[in-house]
Amino acid sequence: MRMRVAVIAAAAIAAAAATGVGVAQNQEPIQPIVPPQQVNLGKVELGKKLFFDPRLSKSGFISCNSCHNLSMGGTDNIRTSIGDKWQQGPINAPTVLNSSLSLAQFWDGRAADLKAQAGGPIANPGEMAFSHTLAIDVLQSIPAYEREFKKVFGKDKIDIDQVTSAIAEFEKTLVTPNARFDQWLLGKKDALTANELAGYKLFKESGCVACHNGAALGGTSFQKMGIVEPYKSSSPAEGRSAVTGKDADRFNFKVPTLRNVELTYPYFHDGAADTLGEAVDVMGRLQLGKKFSADENAKIVAFLKTLTGDQPTFALPILPPSSDKTPRPTPFK
Amino acid sequence: MRMRVAVIAAAAIAAAAATGVGVAQNQEPIQPIVPPQQVNLGKVELGKKLFFDPRLSKSGFISCNSCHNLSMGGTDNIRTSIGDKWQQGPINAPTVLNSSLSLAQFWDGRAADLKAQAGGPIANPGEMAFSHTLAIDVLQSIPAYEREFKKVFGKDKIDIDQVTSAIAEFEKTLVTPNARFDQWLLGKKDALTANELAGYKLFKESGCVACHNGAALGGTSFQKMGIVEPYKSSSPAEGRSAVTGKDADRFNFKVPTLRNVELTYPYFHDGAADTLGEAVDVMGRLQLGKKFSADENAKIVAFLKTLTGDQPTFALPILPPSSDKTPRPTPFK
Repeated sequence: MRMRVAVIAAAAIAAAAATGVGVAQNQEPIQPIVPPQQVNLGKVELGKKLFFDPRLSKSGFISCNSCHNLSMGGTDNIRTSIGDKWQQGPINAPTVLNSSLSLAQFWDGRAADLKAQAGGPIANPGEMAFSHTLAIDVLQSIPAYEREFKKVFGKDKIDIDQVTSAIAEFEKTLVTPNARFDQWLLGKKDALTANELAGYKLFKESGCVACHNGAALGGTSFQKMGIVEPYKSSSPAEGRSAVTGKDADRFNFKVPTLRNVELTYPYFHDGAADTLGEAVDVMGRLQLGKKFSADENAKIVAFLKTLTGDQPTFALPILPPSSDKTPRPTPFK
Repeated sequence: MRMRVAVIAAAAIAAAAATGVGVAQNQEPIQPIVPPQQVNLGKVELGKKLFFDPRLSKSGFISCNSCHNLSMGGTDNIRTSIGDKWQQGPINAPTVLNSSLSLAQFWDGRAADLKAQAGGPIANPGEMAFSHTLAIDVLQSIPAYEREFKKVFGKDKIDIDQVTSAIAEFEKTLVTPNARFDQWLLGKKDALTANELAGYKLFKESGCVACHNGAALGGTSFQKMGIVEPYKSSSPAEGRSAVTGKDADRFNFKVPTLRNVELTYPYFHDGAADTLGEAVDVMGRLQLGKKFSADENAKIVAFLKTLTGDQPTFALPILPPSSDKTPRPTPFK
């Protein structure tokens, strides 16, 4: 019985080689999502708790998961996020899913990596409105956190580096393999319908793939929003120039990933496009000078919906309780 | 082998009977938490999604779990909750854990059961600020919800009765068995320390148990807040009189459960007591006319911390995406 399975497997490999299936992905500008190869599980578990802990905010109400909701594609599905005291954020919250695959973090790339990003919202007065010092005071006062940090990092005192390092390690696990498109890339020919494949062909041939490439279909470069036609937006965001100081970088934004794009509406840095059809239409016109027909648009949208992968599944973390010494949140001050 | 196990089991039962362990709980005014005996799993899974879905709010930002956070003892750990546009709620959010054991819902008991409660916050302008009609419009526009409601309820159209019935069914599962105190009630003599047992003795003999009794240590009656001394609060909540219209019911509130009380700070209907020590002190003075010594207070607090049970564990639900037809949230309008 075992031998028979081995023979069948060998035959399958030979058949795949003969039809070129095994090498198909190498010919494509998009690669399948690969689960993270090396993670520190202690850090992941700690980072997961921190990701869900609203005590990292001044109000005690907003956690990382509030705007990067893992029940909703790692986003909040709102045009621009809600911050402390219901402040309206300046920009659409990008998905945290597969964010480890990006060349930098935030729309303007101002953080080099996930660890550098994680400290931002905590101390941003318009988001979690706390400070790193106050966040550490809170964590240090919670006995179960104190023990867990010590176990994971081997130090007596908690510091913000440990906090952001743990959150980043958890975020590394938030990849979404096994999308139907990845199954197709890996050789499962019937994973996509003819309509979806036609959409992928259009996506490649129209030039979308020039920016939306790599394993994440994005996140590999900064590009100007509005190449052929200017993009009209009421958003104050200026993009990459805020980081580089160069006028040439105005309205350059990090190309967003298209992984799980079916879940991460609304679209663009200002969240102005409610639907995928609208986003494809605007991108075609403004970036490529191309007006997709209704049929072409529908095909591309059908392809994009094949990029939804397995969502991260894990037990909702149970957070350790505050102690009598823990500073209390001040949502209304 | 089977017979041997049966013999051992029979011997254990006989031993328990001989030492009186098996009947210990019957002599106590508190009963162990029993997991729900009959639930409809299809409704539970649907209700779990709805409980976590912020699209039941006007803003798309607030879900049941925002204020009854299952990572934090089924509460928000804030004095009074944050509602739509950061409105300050009038009352402390009671825990959803073991809420199925209460004689009625809300602090003033204005909802007869969990199903009647579940519709309240959705349509409350100070909480989720939506309407039942708008919530149904959203759900009906989401294909995966449409299918799931049909599968669970067998009807073509979603209605608010189905929504609240599913949420209530999920909430029935949010019980927390296996607290150390329950292990002790069930005969595990070493589950509590001498200090904790001394606290339980004080709890009973001082009269706390007159109101905090039953499986939930509360939730079985309405009682006046401030029997011996008046309770001073800036809270506008008047309690049961808002429901009955009777002046005699002023400041009568449902006795809160003490299950998981270590996790459900701050305490009282106005959330004015930050710590368990403070809550025990105030209760002693105002309800019992008794000033607990520091040692007595610490013993009672130690006992109360043995009431933390197994928290509900389940995978974070993944919500079905909105469709192009789904009305978008309006957080800033």
